[in-house]
Amino acid sequence: MLSDWRMQFRSLDAIRAFCRELPGGDAQAEAAAVARQQSLTKPPGSLGRLEQLAAWLARWQGWALPRLDRVTIAVFAANHGVAVRGVSAYPQAVTAQMVANFSTGGAAINQLAKAAGAELAVVPLDLDRPTGDITVEPAMTEDEFLDAVDRGWRTVPPNSDLLAVGEMGIANTTVAAALCAAFFDGGAARWVGRGTGVDDTGLARKREAVEAALRCHQKVFGDPLAVAAALGGRELAAILGAVLAARLHSIPVLLDGFVATAAVVPLVRLDRRALDHCSAAHVSAEHGHRHLLRELGLDPLLDLGMRLGEASGAATAVQILRAALACHAGMATFAEAGVAGKSE
Amino acid sequence: MLSDWRMQFRSLDAIRAFCRELPGGDAQAEAAAVARQQSLTKPPGSLGRLEQLAAWLARWQGWALPRLDRVTIAVFAANHGVAVRGVSAYPQAVTAQMVANFSTGGAAINQLAKAAGAELAVVPLDLDRPTGDITVEPAMTEDEFLDAVDRGWRTVPPNSDLLAVGEMGIANTTVAAALCAAFFDGGAARWVGRGTGVDDTGLARKREAVEAALRCHQKVFGDPLAVAAALGGRELAAILGAVLAARLHSIPVLLDGFVATAAVVPLVRLDRRALDHCSAAHVSAEHGHRHLLRELGLDPLLDLGMRLGEASGAATAVQILRAALACHAGMATFAEAGVAGKSE
Repeated sequence: MLSDWRMQFRSLDAIRAFCRELPGGDAQAEAAAVARQQSLTKPPGSLGRLEQLAAWLARWQGWALPRLDRVTIAVFAANHGVAVRGVSAYPQAVTAQMVANFSTGGAAINQLAKAAGAELAVVPLDLDRPTGDITVEPAMTEDEFLDAVDRGWRTVPPNSDLLAVGEMGIANTTVAAALCAAFFDGGAARWVGRGTGVDDTGLARKREAVEAALRCHQKVFGDPLAVAAALGGRELAAILGAVLAARLHSIPVLLDGFVATAAVVPLVRLDRRALDHCSAAHVSAEHGHRHLLRELGLDPLLDLGMRLGEASGAATAVQILRAALACHAGMATFAEAGVAGKSE
Repeated sequence: MLSDWRMQFRSLDAIRAFCRELPGGDAQAEAAAVARQQSLTKPPGSLGRLEQLAAWLARWQGWALPRLDRVTIAVFAANHGVAVRGVSAYPQAVTAQMVANFSTGGAAINQLAKAAGAELAVVPLDLDRPTGDITVEPAMTEDEFLDAVDRGWRTVPPNSDLLAVGEMGIANTTVAAALCAAFFDGGAARWVGRGTGVDDTGLARKREAVEAALRCHQKVFGDPLAVAAALGGRELAAILGAVLAARLHSIPVLLDGFVATAAVVPLVRLDRRALDHCSAAHVSAEHGHRHLLRELGLDPLLDLGMRLGEASGAATAVQILRAALACHAGMATFAEAGVAGKSE
């Protein structure tokens, strides 16, 4: 039934149904990976998170010896009605200009994807049709939301070994903050940051926009997917769809920064296991991201003060996974190497 | 004069003289790198530490567009007299067994060096001749110390673009703790950790050994190099020599974990600029390492709970530098890409 996915997401109920029967990963593959780690020529646990990452990849790929032959980086781009509120340091035209920069290979993510040995899929989503201004109206209708989810879903090659998700969209840290404030405590003050670098006046406008959006849409807060449609954006919805597709196809996921992580919060509200196949690639300099990762119980792999989006943090973290698997697959066991174990 | 380095380190005074005239790096190359970063298609500063790393590499390589074509990972191995005090969970024979494992390619560092595109140099230092037991005698004579420094120095290919230094030596977290306790406040309690995984009894023995060593050698604490000889080890002295060679040859350095970082503390005591060409690759799970990095003002690139040594953290961090340079060299400028700047 799940394989007939094109039928699945024609309604919000279909997404809800999928989240009730999420695949749980391969516990046996994970256990085999953990056992292998114990036999390798190093004190147990001494590779720290590299060991945990190997086991996590094993569980979600379903192989004791996971691989990273096909790594897909998906960057979704969209425009936001709330940009008219002066919430970004950059004009809205930059979204399309950056998509053009992606296609000619000049952006950070082009270089980072290449360095990570990954395929880059850039998906612009109706850039000439910004979402509604969330301070006064819903960002998307239910149909628009479902369309964006579906386009995210269809972007994921089912034979990927890893998916990294990121975004580009002028004003989208504002909608991410609004989403977080709808789902967690703290209001605009906790979730709004400087994004691409707004000044104090811009920051005040962002806070006001988020507060207005919260007042405008409070009546849907009990329904996570309705919140995603009302306060989110097309690129966030596409990320949500891509993360669901990855779950179906046994593909572990690296989440990029604040916006990409905010995008999948509605899934956690549908089922607390919904992000078990996802790792936080990094914690960004956008302070809301640190709060959000703590709320979600996600421990980021990197903390490099990055705040660019476009999957840049996720692409950088791919190399940490490669390091983990290089050790996992390539190291000798104590027996093979003739190395003595602990003295005790 | 400095180029005649074989003459330099025949005495402790020669090392002291070198540290009085340390090359300062290329400020012009650094400034050019910073200027380039400001022109690239991203909000200024949005790549966080990746931007800073590009500028740091530029300064210490002396090129506005640094490169990582030849990355050298040097792992120095030695044995320690203090091992007889029962301070390690593993028998001393493991040092030689792991060196054999390095040479047949079965260790973590073999896989990580390969994944990082680096050359691995493994240098065993008189494994059959452990240093003196620091609880009752100096680890090394001045000649033994200088010999190890020189062997470290000679290990560094002068045309390397980056040097990563690490170590292997059963019982060497004990000598690293002793060194730190000699140079910084806090005594054994602050600096002694579980190393490869000693139990509570072993931990108590480590603390006692460090306290005994401090009592035994207190009279030399005013002389940083004498402390390195009395409380250190051959692999630590070799790291010190390698880091000095890197400074001479304009090679930036990635320091690995607790032991590798402790090894170069004597240099900072000779001149506070002595580690300006070094970055901390990671902070290890050995708690003394976190304290030590704070004392040195070094902000680690990675925090992955690793505690293996053998340059494993440094090798993993090489990929962060590659990501930084990929962006630095490959990204389009705002002008090239036709992307608008800030609205203000």
